[in-house]
Amino acid sequence: MDLATVIGLVLVLALLVSAMAMGVGIGPYIDIPSVLIVVGGSMGSLLIAFKMEQMKNFVKIFMVAIKPTVDNKSEIIQRLVNYATQARRDGILALEAVANVEENKFLKKGLSMAVDGNEPDTIRALLEIEMEQTNERHKGNAAIFSTWSGIAGAMGMIGTLIGLVAMLLNMADPSAIGPSMAVALLTTMYGAMIGNIFGGPIANILNIRNTDEDVTKQMILEGIMSIQAGDNPRTLEAKLLSYLPPSERVSQFDS
Amino acid sequence: MDLATVIGLVLVLALLVSAMAMGVGIGPYIDIPSVLIVVGGSMGSLLIAFKMEQMKNFVKIFMVAIKPTVDNKSEIIQRLVNYATQARRDGILALEAVANVEENKFLKKGLSMAVDGNEPDTIRALLEIEMEQTNERHKGNAAIFSTWSGIAGAMGMIGTLIGLVAMLLNMADPSAIGPSMAVALLTTMYGAMIGNIFGGPIANILNIRNTDEDVTKQMILEGIMSIQAGDNPRTLEAKLLSYLPPSERVSQFDS
Amino acid sequence: MDLATVIGLVLVLALLVSAMAMGVGIGPYIDIPSVLIVVGGSMGSLLIAFKMEQMKNFVKIFMVAIKPTVDNKSEIIQRLVNYATQARRDGILALEAVANVEENKFLKKGLSMAVDGNEPDTIRALLEIEMEQTNERHKGNAAIFSTWSGIAGAMGMIGTLIGLVAMLLNMADPSAIGPSMAVALLTTMYGAMIGNIFGGPIANILNIRNTDEDVTKQMILEGIMSIQAGDNPRTLEAKLLSYLPPSERVSQFDS
Amino acid sequence: MDLATVIGLVLVLALLVSAMAMGVGIGPYIDIPSVLIVVGGSMGSLLIAFKMEQMKNFVKIFMVAIKPTVDNKSEIIQRLVNYATQARRDGILALEAVANVEENKFLKKGLSMAVDGNEPDTIRALLEIEMEQTNERHKGNAAIFSTWSGIAGAMGMIGTLIGLVAMLLNMADPSAIGPSMAVALLTTMYGAMIGNIFGGPIANILNIRNTDEDVTKQMILEGIMSIQAGDNPRTLEAKLLSYLPPSERVSQFDS
Amino acid sequence: MDLATVIGLVLVLALLVSAMAMGVGIGPYIDIPSVLIVVGGSMGSLLIAFKMEQMKNFVKIFMVAIKPTVDNKSEIIQRLVNYATQARRDGILALEAVANVEENKFLKKGLSMAVDGNEPDTIRALLEIEMEQTNERHKGNAAIFSTWSGIAGAMGMIGTLIGLVAMLLNMADPSAIGPSMAVALLTTMYGAMIGNIFGGPIANILNIRNTDEDVTKQMILEGIMSIQAGDNPRTLEAKLLSYLPPSERVSQFDS
Repeated sequence: MDLATVIGLVLVLALLVSAMAMGVGIGPYIDIPSVLIVVGGSMGSLLIAFKMEQMKNFVKIFMVAIKPTVDNKSEIIQRLVNYATQARRDGILALEAVANVEENKFLKKGLSMAVDGNEPDTIRALLEIEMEQTNERHKGNAAIFSTWSGIAGAMGMIGTLIGLVAMLLNMADPSAIGPSMAVALLTTMYGAMIGNIFGGPIANILNIRNTDEDVTKQMILEGIMSIQAGDNPRTLEAKLLSYLPPSERVSQFDS
Repeated sequence: MDLATVIGLVLVLALLVSAMAMGVGIGPYIDIPSVLIVVGGSMGSLLIAFKMEQMKNFVKIFMVAIKPTVDNKSEIIQRLVNYATQARRDGILALEAVANVEENKFLKKGLSMAVDGNEPDTIRALLEIEMEQTNERHKGNAAIFSTWSGIAGAMGMIGTLIGLVAMLLNMADPSAIGPSMAVALLTTMYGAMIGNIFGGPIANILNIRNTDEDVTKQMILEGIMSIQAGDNPRTLEAKLLSYLPPSERVSQFDS
Repeated sequence: MDLATVIGLVLVLALLVSAMAMGVGIGPYIDIPSVLIVVGGSMGSLLIAFKMEQMKNFVKIFMVAIKPTVDNKSEIIQRLVNYATQARRDGILALEAVANVEENKFLKKGLSMAVDGNEPDTIRALLEIEMEQTNERHKGNAAIFSTWSGIAGAMGMIGTLIGLVAMLLNMADPSAIGPSMAVALLTTMYGAMIGNIFGGPIANILNIRNTDEDVTKQMILEGIMSIQAGDNPRTLEAKLLSYLPPSERVSQFDS
Repeated sequence: MDLATVIGLVLVLALLVSAMAMGVGIGPYIDIPSVLIVVGGSMGSLLIAFKMEQMKNFVKIFMVAIKPTVDNKSEIIQRLVNYATQARRDGILALEAVANVEENKFLKKGLSMAVDGNEPDTIRALLEIEMEQTNERHKGNAAIFSTWSGIAGAMGMIGTLIGLVAMLLNMADPSAIGPSMAVALLTTMYGAMIGNIFGGPIANILNIRNTDEDVTKQMILEGIMSIQAGDNPRTLEAKLLSYLPPSERVSQFDS
Repeated sequence: MDLATVIGLVLVLALLVSAMAMGVGIGPYIDIPSVLIVVGGSMGSLLIAFKMEQMKNFVKIFMVAIKPTVDNKSEIIQRLVNYATQARRDGILALEAVANVEENKFLKKGLSMAVDGNEPDTIRALLEIEMEQTNERHKGNAAIFSTWSGIAGAMGMIGTLIGLVAMLLNMADPSAIGPSMAVALLTTMYGAMIGNIFGGPIANILNIRNTDEDVTKQMILEGIMSIQAGDNPRTLEAKLLSYLPPSERVSQFDS
C-alpha cells in the first residue's frame, strides 16, 4: 500500500499547527463560524456543481486517494503470459477454469469473453467502452477535488470580505481592529489550506492512480487479444514489459 | 430528479447570510447600487459576448441546471435490447409501432430512419451530426455561465475601484472612511459570490449533464446500428452495459 | 441583425457611468494621461504582438462584432435542397445559371466548381483549405481582442505603479495623498474596463460568429458533395436539418 | 518588412516614459539594483529553464520578431504554378535549372528531390519531418519569451518583497518609509513592463510568424506533389489561392 | 554537458542574495521556521499529490535537470546510416555484432529485435509502447516540479497569513509591528523563490529534455524500420537529417 498520501497529510498539518503554536498558540487560529463558511460554503458550491450520486461518494473517493488498491503490473504480466502459454498448448477453452478465479475483474471479463468464443472485434469494442467510461467517471471524481480547491479559496475570500465589512463599520474602538482583522483573515487561510492540502493534491493523486489503472487495462486488452490470436508468449511478454520502467522488466523466460 | 443543485444553492446562501447576520446584521451587506453594478454590468458584458438568441435562453438554461430531465440509462438499454430482440424475430419493420411511441427523441429518430430503410451510413452520419451540433450548442450555453464567473469578478473589482476613488477624494471626515470603504468592498464580494455560487458551479453541472446526454446518445447510436445489423441482443446488451458503472449493470437475461 | 453586442455595450457603460455620477461625479474619473497610458500602451503592445496587416483591420474587426452579417442557415438549406432537386432532374449543368447569382460566396464557388466538372476530391480539398484558412484568420483576429484584455489590465497596473511611486515620493502634504492615490488607481480601473467590456467579450462573440460561419460552410460542403453525387434531396435535407436546433427544423417537403 | 513590432515598442516605451516624466521625473523610476534583480534574475531562471543552445540565440530570436523575413505567398504561388506549367510541357527534369536558383530553401529542397526522381511518398515524408521539426524548434524559441513574461513578473514580486522586508525593519524614521516603499515597488513595475512589452507580445508575434511560415510550407508541399503528379496548373493555382484571404487571390490565368 | 541550468541557478541566487545584502544584510531574510513551513509544507503536499515511488526519485530527477545525459543526434544518425549500409551489403544478420556493443539502449533493443527476425509491425508496436510509456513517466516527473511551483507559492501565502494573524493580535507595542510583518512576509518570498527558481524552470527543462529524447527515439525507430526494409542509406540519411536544424545537417556522403 502506498502510504505517501497519509504521510504527506500528517507532515503538512503537523508543520502548520507547529507554526501556529510557536506564535500566539493554536487557539486564535480556530474559529468555528469561519470553518463553517469555508467548509460548508465550498461543499454547498460543490453540490451545485456536481451530481448528487457523485457527491454521495465524496468520502469514498477521498479514501481511494488515502488507501488505494494498486494493481501489481509485473504480476499481471506474469499471469497474462501464463494464460497465453496455456492457451497455445491446450486451446483457449482450457482457460475457463483460471478465468473463473482471476481476481482482476477487467482481465476476468476479457478472458471469459474470449473463452465464450466472442469475436476479437466484439471483445475489443466492449473492453474499450468499459475503459473509456471508467476513465471518464474517475476523471469526474478527481474533478470534484480540483474544483474544491478553487471554490474553497473563493469562499475564503468571501468570508474575509464579510469580516472586513463588519470591521470597517466598527472602527470606534481602535484596539478591536487588530483582532477583528485577524478573524477576518482566518477564512482566507482556511480556504488556502483546503485548496492546497486537500483539494489540488488529492485531485492530482486520483488522476495519477486513474492513469495507472488505465495503462494496466491497456496491457490486459493487449494480452487478451494476443491470447486469442495465439501469439507467441515470448513476444507478448516482450511487448508487455515495454509498459514497465526498465528497472522492473524481468522476464520469466530468463532462468 | 437530482436535487443536489437546489440543496447546494440553499446551503451556501444560508451559510453566507448567517455569517453576515452574526456580525453587523444583514442590512450593511445589501447595497442596491452595488448590486446593479455587478449584476447589471456583468449581464451587459455577457450580452456583448454572446448572441441574443443564447442570452434569451439564460433563465431556461439556468433551470436546466436546477431541474434537469435525466435519461435513465438502464431503462434505455432495456428498451434497446427489447427492440433488438423484436427486430431479430419479426424483422425491422415490426419496430414501426414502437418507434412512434418512443419517448426519447433521439432514439425515435434513429429507429424511424432504420424502419424507413435508410442505409446504415446515412443514419450514422445524420445522428452523428445531430450529436455533435447539440453538444456544441450545450457547451456554448454552459460557457455563458463560466464567462459570467470571470466577468462578475471583474465587475466587482471595477465597482470597488469606483468606490475607492470616491472615498480617496473625500477623506476630510476620517469617520466616514470606514463605512465608504465597506460599501466599496461590497461589489467585490458580490462578484465573488456570483462567480463561485452561480457562475462556475452552474457551468460545471451543465457540462456534466451534457456529457451524460452525449454518452446516452452514443449508446443509442450503437444500439440502432446493432438493431439494423441484426446483431445478437445478448451481445448488444453486454456492450451497452459497459457504459454503466459496474454496480448498475443488471442484465435482463439473468433470471 | 443581432443587436445584443450594441445593447450590451450601452448597458454596461451606462451602468458604470451612473455609478460614478452617483458618488463624486464623473469628472474625477476622467484623466486623459491615464487614458493615454492604458489605451495607448496596450495598443503599442498589440502592435508588437500582431502583424501590421492584422492591426490595420482593428476597427473593421470590431465592427464585425457590432454589426455582423449572419447567414440564415434555414435559407441556405432550402437553397441547397432546391439545387439538389434541380440537379437531379435536369443534370448538374442546369445549375450554371443559379451559381452565377448565388449570394453566398462559398456556396457559389463550390457550385461553380461542380458545374465546371471538377472531381469531387478536388472540390472537397479546395473548399476544406479555404474553410481552414478562413477559420485560422478569424481566430487570429479574435486573438487580438483577447490579448488586448490581458495587456490592458497589465498596462493599468503599470500605470498605477507609476502613480504610486510618484505619490510615495511626495508625502509631505498628507492631504494630497488621497487624490494622488485616486488618480493612480484610475489606470487599473481603465484596464479592467477595457479588458472586461471590449477585450474579452468582443473576442468571445467573434469566436462564436466564426464557429457559426464554419458550421454553415460545413453544411454547404456537405450539400455540394451530395448535389454532385446526385443524392436524394430528401435525404440531404434531413442531414442538413440535423445541424439546426430542433425548434428550427422545418422541412420543405412537409406540406 | 513589417514595422509593426518596432513601432509598437517605440510607442509603448515613449508613452510610459512620458507618464513618468509628467509626475516626478524619470530619475526616481530608474534604480540599477532593481533592474539587475528583475532582468538578471529572470535571465538566470530562463537559463535554468532552457537549453544553452536556445539561450545563445536569445538576441537572434528577438531580432526575428523585430526584422522578420516574410515570404510573399502570392509570389510563391506564381512560381509554383510556373514550375507546374513548365514540368507539364517539358517534363520534370526541365525544372533542374530553376531548382538550382530557387531562393526559398524549402521549395528548392522539394524541387531537387522531385527532379532527382524520388518517390512522392519519400518526398512528402521528408518534407513533413522538416516542417514539423522546424515548427517545434520555433515554438520552443517563442516559449522562451512567454516564459520570460511570467518569470519577470515573479522576480519583480520577489524584489518588492526583499525591499518591503528591509523597509519594515527600518521604520524608525517615518519620512523614509515613502521613498523606501517607492523603490521596493520598482521591481514589480519592471517585471510587469518586461512581461507585457517584451515577453508576451514578442512570444505572440513569433508564434504568428511561425504559423505563417508553416502555411507557406504546406502550400509548397501541396505544389511539389502536384508538379510531380503532373496536375493541371490551373487546378493547382485554384487550390493554392484558397490559402490566401479573398482580397489577395489574383490568378495569373485571368488576363 | 549542458551547463545552462547550473549557471542559471548560481546567477539568480547570487543576484537575490546580493540584493538582500545591499539593504539590511542577509540575516533578517533567514528564518528557519519560515523555511520549514514553505519547504516542509510544500513537500508534504507533494507527497499527497504523487506516488511514493515518484517522490523517492525527487533528488534523482532534479539531478537529471542539472546534469543531463544528452544524446548526440548527429552521431546517432551516422551510426544508423552505417548500420543501414552494412545491412544492405551483408544482410541484417551482420548487425548482430554491432547490436551487442551499441550504447544507446533503445537503438540496441530495436536492432536486436530486427536481427532476431521479428516482424516490422511487432518491432514498431513494441518500440512505440516503450516510447509512449517513457514519455508519460518523464512528464509525470516534470509535473512534480511544476506542481511544486504552485504549492510552494500557496504555502508561502498560508505562512504569511499565520504570521499576520499573530501580528494583528499583538499590536500593543507599535514598534514590533514592522519586524513581525517583515517575518510574516518571508514565507511569501520563499514560496515565490522556490516556485520561480526551482519549481517552474526545472519542470520546463525536464520537459524540453524529454521532448529531445523522444525525437531521438523517433529517429531511431525510423532508422530501424528502414534498415529492416533494406532502404537506400542515402535516402535514410536525408530523412534523418531533416530532424536536425539546417546548420547541423552534415552528410557523410559529401566528401
